[in-house]
Amino acid sequence: MAVEIERKFLVRNDDWRRQVRGSATIRQGYFCRTPLLRARIRIYGDKGFITLKSEPGTRSRHEFEYEIPQVDAAEIIRRFSIEPLVTKTRHDVDHAGVRWSVDVFTGPNHGLVLAEVELEHEDQAVPLPEWVGEEVTGDRRYGNSNLARFPFASWGEELPPADAL
Amino acid sequence: MAVEIERKFLVRNDDWRRQVRGSATIRQGYFCRTPLLRARIRIYGDKGFITLKSEPGTRSRHEFEYEIPQVDAAEIIRRFSIEPLVTKTRHDVDHAGVRWSVDVFTGPNHGLVLAEVELEHEDQAVPLPEWVGEEVTGDRRYGNSNLARFPFASWGEELPPADAL
Repeated sequence: MAVEIERKFLVRNDDWRRQVRGSATIRQGYFCRTPLLRARIRIYGDKGFITLKSEPGTRSRHEFEYEIPQVDAAEIIRRFSIEPLVTKTRHDVDHAGVRWSVDVFTGPNHGLVLAEVELEHEDQAVPLPEWVGEEVTGDRRYGNSNLARFPFASWGEELPPADAL
Repeated sequence: MAVEIERKFLVRNDDWRRQVRGSATIRQGYFCRTPLLRARIRIYGDKGFITLKSEPGTRSRHEFEYEIPQVDAAEIIRRFSIEPLVTKTRHDVDHAGVRWSVDVFTGPNHGLVLAEVELEHEDQAVPLPEWVGEEVTGDRRYGNSNLARFPFASWGEELPPADAL
């Protein structure tokens, strides 16, 4: 079990592309939600993962993640997904000695680019790259499980109300 | 992924105890149900497992099971269970070259003993031991996920209605 502490930002421009160390496609789907958790299957490059995450708090969540055969992951997604998949390309970006994930969404979330950084503790100071824009940590509209149900391309002029999620 | 095909029976007497090859305690809890699946955490002896099973059909179910650290299993049960645990001792019993599982339930299901046998295909003939009683394959009242919600000790004179499950 891990406690996941992360901050999430919009991205202002493409300058992060000069610092990319690696990239992989991600397809992921949720097979259940309860008041306590969200359970996800992720295909990340050629690997599969099953992940249980506690409901989002502010920056910290309890997370249990296990690698499973990629073929099983695809089969579980096919049989048990309860909502549309989220697809994206994840780029590993190093900035000032810190590893960032820049997610370029595809499919119904096309147009959305998010940068995430994982922290070791909640108060850790992180030097922000100049290509990072508004912080959206804790804004549930940008959570992957909500992007499955309310995809970015459907937001139009108005954001979905944060309290509807 | 496996297709699980099993038959389940009540047990008439204790004669199976002469054929026991091994025993282990099981504690298990469900962390979600959807119309498509039930997701379970099981602590089986000193091992932990996460299991996704399709909703029950007749004898066949699709099942995905992965071993996880026992300490994680205990933590997931503690954090995410949506209903009371089911506890039992599972005895491995060999009869006529076939491996049976005899589950002696404890806690709220005290008094219930079930014998299960896994088949390789739906039409496989299995020699039934004389200690096996009424077949309850497909009777959802005897499913572990229903025993969590409607424990055996609460059945009293009347069975819970099978169509309420």
